[in-house]
Amino acid sequence: MTIKVAVAGASGYAGGEILRLLCGHPRVATGEVEIGALTAGGNAGTRLGEHHKHLLPLADRVLAETTPEVLAGHDVVFLGLPHGQSAVIADVLPPSTVIIDCGADFRLTDAQEWTHYYGGDHAGTWPYGMPELPGNREVLSGATKIAVPGCYPTVSILSLRPAISSGLIDTRVTVVAMSGTSGAGRAPKTNLLASEVIGSVRAYGVGGAHRHTPEITQALSAAADAPVDVSFTPVLVPTSRGILATCTARTAATDDELRAVYEAAYADEPFVYVLPKGEFPETGSVIGSNAIQIGIAVDERTGTFTAIGVVDNLTKGTGGAAVQSMNLAVGFGETEGLTTVGVAP
Amino acid sequence: MTIKVAVAGASGYAGGEILRLLCGHPRVATGEVEIGALTAGGNAGTRLGEHHKHLLPLADRVLAETTPEVLAGHDVVFLGLPHGQSAVIADVLPPSTVIIDCGADFRLTDAQEWTHYYGGDHAGTWPYGMPELPGNREVLSGATKIAVPGCYPTVSILSLRPAISSGLIDTRVTVVAMSGTSGAGRAPKTNLLASEVIGSVRAYGVGGAHRHTPEITQALSAAADAPVDVSFTPVLVPTSRGILATCTARTAATDDELRAVYEAAYADEPFVYVLPKGEFPETGSVIGSNAIQIGIAVDERTGTFTAIGVVDNLTKGTGGAAVQSMNLAVGFGETEGLTTVGVAP
Amino acid sequence: MTIKVAVAGASGYAGGEILRLLCGHPRVATGEVEIGALTAGGNAGTRLGEHHKHLLPLADRVLAETTPEVLAGHDVVFLGLPHGQSAVIADVLPPSTVIIDCGADFRLTDAQEWTHYYGGDHAGTWPYGMPELPGNREVLSGATKIAVPGCYPTVSILSLRPAISSGLIDTRVTVVAMSGTSGAGRAPKTNLLASEVIGSVRAYGVGGAHRHTPEITQALSAAADAPVDVSFTPVLVPTSRGILATCTARTAATDDELRAVYEAAYADEPFVYVLPKGEFPETGSVIGSNAIQIGIAVDERTGTFTAIGVVDNLTKGTGGAAVQSMNLAVGFGETEGLTTVGVAP
Amino acid sequence: MTIKVAVAGASGYAGGEILRLLCGHPRVATGEVEIGALTAGGNAGTRLGEHHKHLLPLADRVLAETTPEVLAGHDVVFLGLPHGQSAVIADVLPPSTVIIDCGADFRLTDAQEWTHYYGGDHAGTWPYGMPELPGNREVLSGATKIAVPGCYPTVSILSLRPAISSGLIDTRVTVVAMSGTSGAGRAPKTNLLASEVIGSVRAYGVGGAHRHTPEITQALSAAADAPVDVSFTPVLVPTSRGILATCTARTAATDDELRAVYEAAYADEPFVYVLPKGEFPETGSVIGSNAIQIGIAVDERTGTFTAIGVVDNLTKGTGGAAVQSMNLAVGFGETEGLTTVGVAP
Repeated sequence: MTIKVAVAGASGYAGGEILRLLCGHPRVATGEVEIGALTAGGNAGTRLGEHHKHLLPLADRVLAETTPEVLAGHDVVFLGLPHGQSAVIADVLPPSTVIIDCGADFRLTDAQEWTHYYGGDHAGTWPYGMPELPGNREVLSGATKIAVPGCYPTVSILSLRPAISSGLIDTRVTVVAMSGTSGAGRAPKTNLLASEVIGSVRAYGVGGAHRHTPEITQALSAAADAPVDVSFTPVLVPTSRGILATCTARTAATDDELRAVYEAAYADEPFVYVLPKGEFPETGSVIGSNAIQIGIAVDERTGTFTAIGVVDNLTKGTGGAAVQSMNLAVGFGETEGLTTVGVAP
Repeated sequence: MTIKVAVAGASGYAGGEILRLLCGHPRVATGEVEIGALTAGGNAGTRLGEHHKHLLPLADRVLAETTPEVLAGHDVVFLGLPHGQSAVIADVLPPSTVIIDCGADFRLTDAQEWTHYYGGDHAGTWPYGMPELPGNREVLSGATKIAVPGCYPTVSILSLRPAISSGLIDTRVTVVAMSGTSGAGRAPKTNLLASEVIGSVRAYGVGGAHRHTPEITQALSAAADAPVDVSFTPVLVPTSRGILATCTARTAATDDELRAVYEAAYADEPFVYVLPKGEFPETGSVIGSNAIQIGIAVDERTGTFTAIGVVDNLTKGTGGAAVQSMNLAVGFGETEGLTTVGVAP
Repeated sequence: MTIKVAVAGASGYAGGEILRLLCGHPRVATGEVEIGALTAGGNAGTRLGEHHKHLLPLADRVLAETTPEVLAGHDVVFLGLPHGQSAVIADVLPPSTVIIDCGADFRLTDAQEWTHYYGGDHAGTWPYGMPELPGNREVLSGATKIAVPGCYPTVSILSLRPAISSGLIDTRVTVVAMSGTSGAGRAPKTNLLASEVIGSVRAYGVGGAHRHTPEITQALSAAADAPVDVSFTPVLVPTSRGILATCTARTAATDDELRAVYEAAYADEPFVYVLPKGEFPETGSVIGSNAIQIGIAVDERTGTFTAIGVVDNLTKGTGGAAVQSMNLAVGFGETEGLTTVGVAP
Repeated sequence: MTIKVAVAGASGYAGGEILRLLCGHPRVATGEVEIGALTAGGNAGTRLGEHHKHLLPLADRVLAETTPEVLAGHDVVFLGLPHGQSAVIADVLPPSTVIIDCGADFRLTDAQEWTHYYGGDHAGTWPYGMPELPGNREVLSGATKIAVPGCYPTVSILSLRPAISSGLIDTRVTVVAMSGTSGAGRAPKTNLLASEVIGSVRAYGVGGAHRHTPEITQALSAAADAPVDVSFTPVLVPTSRGILATCTARTAATDDELRAVYEAAYADEPFVYVLPKGEFPETGSVIGSNAIQIGIAVDERTGTFTAIGVVDNLTKGTGGAAVQSMNLAVGFGETEGLTTVGVAP
């Protein structure tokens, strides 16, 4: 039996990353997975090779229009669309279709927060595609609707959750996260031009304005079983891929106590790697990989806990989490087609 | 009368930046300042042009050995040396010599902190070359010994001081600061190779380990007239120049209250520019400039104050502050040879 | 008497660079030059500070619409406009107005070549703003209309001209030139996004298709007094500024013979620097500088001459050449407001 | 039966890339290949994870000393050593050991050229690990000694060979090739520091001085069955990986004639991809991939042929070619563990 997969938004960065991973997925090689429709908005009618020159095996595929008709007839549909567009498509596809949404539409549980940050009406809440949250792997196994986490939330939540959950750190946390530009998407904007970005570091969405703030807050509050205050500042850096999150909170605990918490939390996780004492990660180690690397430290002079986490925003932060979610949804091994080995240097 | 200037450590980045600024200083053009000895350690005997291909007017100067004999006979001596070497030279030069030290030897007032972070004995404390601190401009005018602030401290202190001094924010502050690689100096190290840095973002000195931590703490505590707790995390980013510091603390004050404090503090400062509400700076705007740009915000949902500051670590963060200090020390106009105009994009 | 200067296209990169240089021009400091109207197309009505955050002294200037009415009343008008728009403006301004056009409209002498490469009708030919060409400095002194050379032509022509003019190299030359992205302008395009450019090197305009080909050919053919065949391949590299041109041709001459030719040609040129034997330039040495650095070599095994030249495409390649041209046109010292010192590293 | 593989020079970039590819090789997953000794020089005794943070599955492996004793007992030995060290090891390992040398020692056939470019005595000549050369795939199948081609030669030879072999272009060719810094290795050198490389483009080895010149010449002369003159200029650009080679030669042929030659030459090659007319490659499309992408054009105005080729210098340019060679040597499928899909953007 063959599982037919479609990718909507195939000319964007999220779509391209899903396709990159599918090209190397063992079930595609065996024919158990078939790459079906690839769709786009304004780029419909053009060759995929014009947009993703790195996807040679699919270079001659022609992009179809993103419509429910085109997407119908597929067992799995990945959506890499601007927010607000996923619900319309999900509503008309057969309920058995596995829909994996890389957008934000179904991530938040609080409709008011949705409206505050995104505007418009809240479309609903789907299972959150982060198998590393306690109990979530079971929810995702066999699920038909999955909301892939945002890139900043992925690294922030996984870096802070064990500490928050343990009660060993303060619930007021500060996250400063540096991202490469691919997280901002492929639509041409002056402030994302290479000339503007190269040689420069830029803070934006300062003061809680970034849309990923409520998503981080939601997951950490669930872990604390109490409201967590998140001060989140994103920073744009001159790389294409990669996010490094610096997460700090006050603590009375020791480095050893917190280290034990992290090691216990992630001992069996295939994609989470807690670095040895005194080592801290860099984004260059996880490019193209689905791993998250986390280093932690306690400054006992000031009573401060710091966790540093890195992911590839397009892999573990988007397309890799989407494929990991698909694997769980359809019953493949969770790690199939994914790797913890990055491309470096 | 001609002021004769020497630069020790001329083949390094700090020395090179001082020379870049001197080449454009109006008193050099008029002959009132003469660029005298340029010295080096291992590079003594080579042409300056081999090391600084951008300093064409000085390309054929030959580097002398860094010795007191070579530096004697100069009215102003800039030191761009590894820490621990400045005191020896300062001790033997005539007391009237204006010595402007870009190293850390004379920045800290607390001998124990010095020994904790740098090892060895504390050499003493010199006036701190940051004219923007209240009362400090007067101290520096006519001074003969000046300790140029560190690059991270420059941006961190100037970004946080007005808020700390006003008592409107908590004295527990978190600073996450991203720096280009030139701040790490020019000695060849594997982890500073382009291959290791390009495409990557790396945290280091996590948990209060970075030597600039006590320097930031010292200045902010003086401003608060109380101990300030500083959580400082430096991050290396793939640019050559520029530091962006993200500074956060809890606050009960409003954006407007804090904005008024910053505008009052810096209204007359020639190199400090507080950005309009809703605007935040990027390092690309201050490359080669002596300006510091600061943007501030209050997130009233979480009661968090954020100040974002940017400087060029080699200009305002080192060589520019050194020249600004020289101008004050010898009685030139403070801004001579310095600009608030960056090279962008 | 005050010379009033306008900049049309002030929110673009060429306009921004002219303004950066004017901010540091000594005649602006003395009031002999006044920065008048700053105009834009779509950005009219906005603050300059929104577009050029590095130009702090002009941050609050509001951009006017680019119209002849706004530009009238100025003694010098710099045009940084898309090609095809300069002639209209030049036609209606008073003939005594010094117009310095950074666009391509008036660079070519051959109307057919113009139409082949740019389409539409040829507007005419103005004096070419490259004072380093023999006899051209005299032409530009007091000129009222000047066509600023293109960025690739600037470095290619100055790197090859002495050899071509000497008759010592073949007239079939190959130029492969790598440019940062700022040469492609500030209009948002997908292929200029940071995500597409960082980590990548891309050839374009291969096979003689780039519009700067005829401009290079024109100047070199004039130097040879014979048709010169130019194979020109531009390559986009992940920097913001800087062009390095690799120019090769067959030769029977020796390194010494050709070196003598270059040294003679440029002995008195304030902005052209021929590197010592065995040294070759890099773009990082000329950022923000008006210098061109040239290194030459002869491979006697294969009889090949190579000249490597570097410029900052926005300075000597555009805005610096424009200011140099203005200086000559209005009778200032040619080098005023310009420097041979780059910002490095 | 298990094939035991050792990697000498495992802490360098070539060694790291071979290990990256082996981690994803299907024969390692099945246990048919076992990753045995990993050795180093100065880094012996340290964990691999300290040097290659991206190789998580091997992070805790401890590096052994590079000695014949340690390497003995392996079926396949990859050598990533400084030139001049391979022969010593090859001499003492059992003759049946498959040795795949990423260094230059056994690439050249002409002992005099070896001595001219590398100094010292020529060690000999091994089969050249470029299966895409006519007849070479057969030579490599079952071979026990293989010299992996240099990175610049890989892209230059594959980009030019069909044209040279066809006789349709002149035998005087000009190659200007831009490389990321990883090709220069991991030994710390001042001129490879990030501060020196970021924001800059630098020519080096001008005038035929680069050691890859004779290797390119050798292969192209063999293809032409006549001496080919190669003018080769390497350029360092601010990326970590990737080489783009711009190859030009005079021609009387048409674009269509040459295109037919390339398409015929590479129709069955799994890793060579000739781009459609009017398309040219960029290095960003082949990062981590074993593909070479080639675009060609003829400028009929000047009679110039241009071929633009791109490879990842560490993959197809070193480690990928090494694994491809191993696959042929031991009888695996040639493409196993390798991909034509790059990591982009």
